[in-house]
Amino acid sequence: MEFSSKLLENAVYEMSQLPGIGKRTALRLVLHLLKQPEEQARELSAAILKLREEVNFCKSCFNISDTDYCEICSNPKRDHSLICVVEDIRDVMAIENTAQFQGHYHVLGGKISPIEGVGPQDLNIKPLIEKVKEGEVQELIFALSSTMEGDTTNFYIYKQLEGLNVTTSTIARGIAVGDELEYADEVTLGRSILNRVPFERSIKAS
Amino acid sequence: MEFSSKLLENAVYEMSQLPGIGKRTALRLVLHLLKQPEEQARELSAAILKLREEVNFCKSCFNISDTDYCEICSNPKRDHSLICVVEDIRDVMAIENTAQFQGHYHVLGGKISPIEGVGPQDLNIKPLIEKVKEGEVQELIFALSSTMEGDTTNFYIYKQLEGLNVTTSTIARGIAVGDELEYADEVTLGRSILNRVPFERSIKAS
Repeated sequence: MEFSSKLLENAVYEMSQLPGIGKRTALRLVLHLLKQPEEQARELSAAILKLREEVNFCKSCFNISDTDYCEICSNPKRDHSLICVVEDIRDVMAIENTAQFQGHYHVLGGKISPIEGVGPQDLNIKPLIEKVKEGEVQELIFALSSTMEGDTTNFYIYKQLEGLNVTTSTIARGIAVGDELEYADEVTLGRSILNRVPFERSIKAS
Repeated sequence: MEFSSKLLENAVYEMSQLPGIGKRTALRLVLHLLKQPEEQARELSAAILKLREEVNFCKSCFNISDTDYCEICSNPKRDHSLICVVEDIRDVMAIENTAQFQGHYHVLGGKISPIEGVGPQDLNIKPLIEKVKEGEVQELIFALSSTMEGDTTNFYIYKQLEGLNVTTSTIARGIAVGDELEYADEVTLGRSILNRVPFERSIKAS
């Protein structure tokens, strides 16, 4: 792509470094900003910079938070003996949206992935083990994605917990509510039969 | 969407103001920036701001340029008697990529669109007419998209040119090179038959 301006080329280049944004999309976004009032570009630019420079993570669960401890960790009504282990803050938001969980979270910040060069020391695993060692945590719920990396991470944490008095569980896998059986993949369908739940329980949940 | 941090919420909001970027995508992009070295967010932020504040348009053709007159307008080898009228600087880049055009451009900055509140005075039409009045331009090629708005804009400019000694043309519409006839829409196919070209000419072009 040939640009008529270095400034434009540079802005397009930086925009195209974002995931899923190619050069063409980046150009479209940048030209859009040029058509909008100058204020909009200034606010976008400032918001990105401010977040990156002043971002703060909760000292307990590593969720993004403007305060030392996030709203969830500092809420006395929430059950701190129950911790849901997730990969990312988006998972916290997704689970919070269900309004079904009243415990705490622990954000790992990724999954163990040798291919991408992510080892256990790159994730917030140590603080989780420390938290369990303090003795107040009764159950850890693993809510990582069920990929090779997710399973590896679950297993690594599980091994680290050996000898500690804590229950571990994983979120249920199965056919999504409202989905047709015929379109489900066979692994999911197989697991959903193996891990079937008593009918009375399924009535209560709905 | 509930955010655990105002800074995060603000960055996601500003990012989601870009066209085609919803809240979820914006969140994904912003979280990606948080995982990258601080330098990347700083450079993106600076590039956007710098472009918006220092952007300069060519005084002749209104293409984005770092100098008063863009490289094309200030290139003495290019034919300034031939002007290709386009909507957007992306069209300039697309036509330049073909390496088939050796004239100048004129970037209108949009199309006349009463629905979107864009009138002739919002576009760079007046400077185009002035340029033609100076008498050196021999041909205008309309290369706007063939939509209602594009056709209206073409016709508006055409009317403004009345009495001036200039030829006007539009780029050829037809079946794209390599396309199958059976999948072409009927308007395009119809036009491509009406505007057929002598076989000898089609051999020369390929």
